[in-house]
Amino acid sequence: MSSQIALESVTDAEFAAWRGFVRVHASVVKQLDADLEASHQLPLTSYEVLATLGDQPGGKMRMCDLADAVVLSRSGLTRLVDRLGRDGLIERAECASDARGAYAVLTAAGRERLHEAEPLHREMIERRFLSYFSDEELQVLAGFWERVLDTPQT
Amino acid sequence: MSSQIALESVTDAEFAAWRGFVRVHASVVKQLDADLEASHQLPLTSYEVLATLGDQPGGKMRMCDLADAVVLSRSGLTRLVDRLGRDGLIERAECASDARGAYAVLTAAGRERLHEAEPLHREMIERRFLSYFSDEELQVLAGFWERVLDTPQT
Repeated sequence: MSSQIALESVTDAEFAAWRGFVRVHASVVKQLDADLEASHQLPLTSYEVLATLGDQPGGKMRMCDLADAVVLSRSGLTRLVDRLGRDGLIERAECASDARGAYAVLTAAGRERLHEAEPLHREMIERRFLSYFSDEELQVLAGFWERVLDTPQT
Repeated sequence: MSSQIALESVTDAEFAAWRGFVRVHASVVKQLDADLEASHQLPLTSYEVLATLGDQPGGKMRMCDLADAVVLSRSGLTRLVDRLGRDGLIERAECASDARGAYAVLTAAGRERLHEAEPLHREMIERRFLSYFSDEELQVLAGFWERVLDTPQT
């Protein structure tokens, strides 16, 4: 009985590392989404699609690669790209020679909106996340995430 | 010019701590959501609502407190609670003496479904997140999150 209690409390202590992670993420994302929407009419997921395309040569990326990069489901991304297309921030392009199909391409208006929103995005991430940690701690965190992301999942 | 480059690269190094955090969260949540949906027909957000109620006396919580606890918007939570209500896992109760209104209450079927899904939830979090870190590192992480969550936001 006592060993069971000990085991459970170890697990609960470990779980604090997970629960805190989830709560911090949710809290920062919620604030960041509200900040970007209020100042640039650009919810966080839209910002992330524009920023991901902005990092590519020609602002162009295959839809399936874009979905992986922003970790949205394929159908979720299609709806979002449609919406950004109606706002003129993105265009869809077909590639006749490639069976893997459609691309999303950042328009000039999309690039402009991205550049307008970038300083606020960076400032809010500094204020709401990075400022809580020393430079050494940020290096520790970056190393932790690299470890998780570089290990193949089973 | 050179000082500007130095400033930018420091900022990029810091940003790795944020970008990795977002990517790890998205990746773990996506896997966990798929695991729970496949094995228990319970997407992660539904699981979190049931688990949050399960931790309360009588399995009962004010809707607005529940929305804060699971970090969903009020309208998002209403739709989710409606869905969980149709599945018989949750009931809504009004409180006549309290103007702040509606409660969500875990049903017996909801508690049973939660208990069925708990071991998988715990196992997957261990495998997909906690197992990457030593006990000391998990304590470091838990301390980091406490620091962020305990500091009032401006």
